[in-house]
Amino acid sequence: MSVSRYTYLGPEGTFTEAALRTLPEAATRELMPMVSVPAALDAVRSGEAGAALVPIENSVEGGVTATLDELATGKPLMIYREVLLPISFALLVRPGTGLTDVKTVTGHPVAQPQVRKWLAAHLPDAQWESAASNADGARLVQEGRYDAAFAGEFAAGTYGLKPLVTDIHDAQNAVTRFVLAGRPARPAARTGADKTSVVIWLGDDHPGALLELLQEFAARGVNMMRIESRPTGEGIGRYCFSVDCEGHITDRRVGEALMGLKRICPKVRFLGSYPRAGVSPEELPPLRHGTTDEEFSAASDWLARCLDGRS
Amino acid sequence: MSVSRYTYLGPEGTFTEAALRTLPEAATRELMPMVSVPAALDAVRSGEAGAALVPIENSVEGGVTATLDELATGKPLMIYREVLLPISFALLVRPGTGLTDVKTVTGHPVAQPQVRKWLAAHLPDAQWESAASNADGARLVQEGRYDAAFAGEFAAGTYGLKPLVTDIHDAQNAVTRFVLAGRPARPAARTGADKTSVVIWLGDDHPGALLELLQEFAARGVNMMRIESRPTGEGIGRYCFSVDCEGHITDRRVGEALMGLKRICPKVRFLGSYPRAGVSPEELPPLRHGTTDEEFSAASDWLARCLDGRS
Amino acid sequence: MSVSRYTYLGPEGTFTEAALRTLPEAATRELMPMVSVPAALDAVRSGEAGAALVPIENSVEGGVTATLDELATGKPLMIYREVLLPISFALLVRPGTGLTDVKTVTGHPVAQPQVRKWLAAHLPDAQWESAASNADGARLVQEGRYDAAFAGEFAAGTYGLKPLVTDIHDAQNAVTRFVLAGRPARPAARTGADKTSVVIWLGDDHPGALLELLQEFAARGVNMMRIESRPTGEGIGRYCFSVDCEGHITDRRVGEALMGLKRICPKVRFLGSYPRAGVSPEELPPLRHGTTDEEFSAASDWLARCLDGRS
Amino acid sequence: MSVSRYTYLGPEGTFTEAALRTLPEAATRELMPMVSVPAALDAVRSGEAGAALVPIENSVEGGVTATLDELATGKPLMIYREVLLPISFALLVRPGTGLTDVKTVTGHPVAQPQVRKWLAAHLPDAQWESAASNADGARLVQEGRYDAAFAGEFAAGTYGLKPLVTDIHDAQNAVTRFVLAGRPARPAARTGADKTSVVIWLGDDHPGALLELLQEFAARGVNMMRIESRPTGEGIGRYCFSVDCEGHITDRRVGEALMGLKRICPKVRFLGSYPRAGVSPEELPPLRHGTTDEEFSAASDWLARCLDGRS
Repeated sequence: MSVSRYTYLGPEGTFTEAALRTLPEAATRELMPMVSVPAALDAVRSGEAGAALVPIENSVEGGVTATLDELATGKPLMIYREVLLPISFALLVRPGTGLTDVKTVTGHPVAQPQVRKWLAAHLPDAQWESAASNADGARLVQEGRYDAAFAGEFAAGTYGLKPLVTDIHDAQNAVTRFVLAGRPARPAARTGADKTSVVIWLGDDHPGALLELLQEFAARGVNMMRIESRPTGEGIGRYCFSVDCEGHITDRRVGEALMGLKRICPKVRFLGSYPRAGVSPEELPPLRHGTTDEEFSAASDWLARCLDGRS
Repeated sequence: MSVSRYTYLGPEGTFTEAALRTLPEAATRELMPMVSVPAALDAVRSGEAGAALVPIENSVEGGVTATLDELATGKPLMIYREVLLPISFALLVRPGTGLTDVKTVTGHPVAQPQVRKWLAAHLPDAQWESAASNADGARLVQEGRYDAAFAGEFAAGTYGLKPLVTDIHDAQNAVTRFVLAGRPARPAARTGADKTSVVIWLGDDHPGALLELLQEFAARGVNMMRIESRPTGEGIGRYCFSVDCEGHITDRRVGEALMGLKRICPKVRFLGSYPRAGVSPEELPPLRHGTTDEEFSAASDWLARCLDGRS
Repeated sequence: MSVSRYTYLGPEGTFTEAALRTLPEAATRELMPMVSVPAALDAVRSGEAGAALVPIENSVEGGVTATLDELATGKPLMIYREVLLPISFALLVRPGTGLTDVKTVTGHPVAQPQVRKWLAAHLPDAQWESAASNADGARLVQEGRYDAAFAGEFAAGTYGLKPLVTDIHDAQNAVTRFVLAGRPARPAARTGADKTSVVIWLGDDHPGALLELLQEFAARGVNMMRIESRPTGEGIGRYCFSVDCEGHITDRRVGEALMGLKRICPKVRFLGSYPRAGVSPEELPPLRHGTTDEEFSAASDWLARCLDGRS
Repeated sequence: MSVSRYTYLGPEGTFTEAALRTLPEAATRELMPMVSVPAALDAVRSGEAGAALVPIENSVEGGVTATLDELATGKPLMIYREVLLPISFALLVRPGTGLTDVKTVTGHPVAQPQVRKWLAAHLPDAQWESAASNADGARLVQEGRYDAAFAGEFAAGTYGLKPLVTDIHDAQNAVTRFVLAGRPARPAARTGADKTSVVIWLGDDHPGALLELLQEFAARGVNMMRIESRPTGEGIGRYCFSVDCEGHITDRRVGEALMGLKRICPKVRFLGSYPRAGVSPEELPPLRHGTTDEEFSAASDWLARCLDGRS
């Protein structure tokens, strides 16, 4: 087992690598690109790596289904960190190439909608072909197959290219969220600005099941931050739900909500509690009345007194 | 302090006494009639009596407000037992009186609607005057003030009367519920067919407060059996709620619901958990999926495993 | 039929008469005291009176069950107005009586808790006996049976008494709410600060029925102002609910909520929409987003466009 | 405008074409394959085609995001039909190829998980490379680039291939759902077994917004059949929801739920009501008490009588 190695969705030069390098600990780890999300996660499962950084959600494209499905139904892993990375593109070219020389461009298909307007304005006649990843596009430019590639500016050095134009993105700033997944262990320590991830299967296919699920959170004042339906594979109309809620499993309101889910749903997979990226505890709104740990403790004490006839 | 004395809403010969005598322990207690519900309960508070039996609800007349208000806002007491007593009346007369001799009848005002039809059919010309209690009516007949009184058949002996007609009641069988109240102590033992009583004050007067209160029960699958609104005395539109729910405070679902109420409401008074009258555990419907103690325990265990990374 | 006659809960000199006289139209009506709430309402049903004013709720004592039950299950009537009257008492005596002369006092039982503190402070040795009504107490003082009666100051003249002390009440200002009931007809006109009253029977005795009832209101953003449970007479645990909600039946949100109740409950009795006493439209908080008549109309228009393929 | 032309997600020989050919009307239409979902839909928007058949959901892979996003945010279209197609694969080869000759196989990436087990069992050494579509894979086999392609059996003829093995699929039978989209017009006629599709944007990002959305359906007893979250593109944590519910917009309960959504959500897009594939009205469970059109009508009538004083 090599906890000093972190895998990530490669190849080198992708946004995932850039996201991984924002983690302080990345400086002391061996970073190993993998060909796919399953490969990156399998290396963790087998013990070849201590953790894997993989994209889970993009503010434009939506959930990354490979990651969602691996975490939901693959051999259990847990999330210990999240990273948010604003996505903006550079147009990478071989040294010496000018904008007027660019006749063919490439990039990952998900990059296309984000650079479409820029292309229409600045390179209306350039022909687009998709590459397997943004970094792969850069490599194809290095090999001379295309004149330019859209990729992260940080990928230029890796492939001997130079950024001709930078900070290209759609009007709405795209952000990708990545998670650092490791083998199941104690959750990350509570910071006061935390997030908890679970996957929830609904039981018999009764109409109100999703409503009941949400009410387990609502009844304890736990705010849901993300809900993503995924097919269970058992037929049209059968879903499981990947859910992020605010708070840490050690917060009493979160723990009670999770136990509520566990009781009414046939299967709940706890994916971890971890610090929310980009938010400090001071920035959070106050909790709903009656949902703080102090109020939970006071209510427990009261119940104990009732049981003793001292209420 | 005299735990061997039980007070009850008197005078002798009322339905309350009859209800009290259905309790096996009544045989070994000194039974003391009191002039009012507050007097019966105050004797318990002061230690002059060990417990008091008072009516709390009638299936025709509704809640007994004196009892509800004493339990809600008086010096704390707890309920340890409940008794259900079918209410049917006898027409009590002095020995020698025949039906045709009855020109004037009396009884407690709440008796009147329950004997109205019988009166119209059998004594259409008799004149009704109200008495302070059914037993008091019997006494007035004994004294010759009225020809007949409606009261419990059991009151005849006490007042030297005889029942001329028995089992008089309205088509719908009336039942009165009584509670045995004592000083706060450990709740009655769980039997599996239990009831829990609380009084709940709503906080700021926001419109959805009652809905939130009910949802604390509903979220844990705890069925509400009775809800009675009472004014708090703070103005029109300000209520507290007297609530009975099924289950015992030591049932996990009930305890969690009570703690939920305690957290969101400014004040909750626990009035006790006690055996349901007239129902055995076998007769109860199964609990809602996910609300048994076993399921609560399993969910707690699962949460503990999640916290250890062993889920 | 005599619409120019209004009955009220008598006798003359009660708070009900005082409340009735606050209505401008009372000046031009024949006001007739009746011996009971049912008698006052029956006179309306039979056409002998155009309307009846009866108490329905007291901020200290709670709902007036005779009124609630008559409106719920008697021959249908409708509420067209409400009146709020602060309740404070005067100590009425025969001319010439001084405070030190008062050995016996009387009044209606509900007056007692509201004058108890005053009595303890100023007439600690006076003996209390209950009267059938506050006005009746005044009459008994007139007849010399008691030295003083607690009643409304306005009752003094009627019974040839004089108020020895006025403005006696408990610390919390008691208010009684009265309603003016008439035969069913078009509801009172909408004013923008209205109230709607209904009585709702729950169907099969399933645990969540009350929650469902409240959700019909909540789903349309209609605030409930009062809820009072009353036994249906069919046995312990069977209730109907007397409910006041804000808004007028012609408000779309209220109409939709009422129809929702009508669909899920076996029986709903509409008791009227009428102006809220003591509140002007300007004082009301804004409606919840999505519940104004304009938003209902816009949604209807949108649905019509969807049906035409023009959304 | 050419209503006689139907586009579909091509190329020829895909499952989409097979699904389209299950529609009786396909026999009399010109069927035109398009290179992408947007292209197929744009042809309808521009009037070049009367309708387009596109995949929207797969029981294994989940929602087809291109279709969901085009219908949600592209120029409005409406759904008039749905088609369910069981997905099973044939291994297509050039005539003369035997199983032992197969060293390289291809197919659409979504086919891979569904044939993985079969491959491991029967062609463990064959090398997989992804193709742009199943049909494209077949074409590449025709051109000699690969030895075999996984595709629908129906694609064999188009590409001069023959099915070497048929009915290959994972243990769980995969199904793909397709929708026939046209320009907005009157919805498809109600059949009694219908489905309604909408896209719903949540307003301010408040925690309970999704719960409120679901309650608009639940309050009217309308069952939700599918919910899919999609990013709005406005940042991490901002979603719209693509929802299918049972029932037809002309069903009163559905219409009221849709109006409820319209009132509380900043934007609702109606995508159509259309017959449910594979279900007849007789097979449906009975509607929840209180939600039939008859009950809605009866409640409307009752409200009208209340307004007239005739309830």
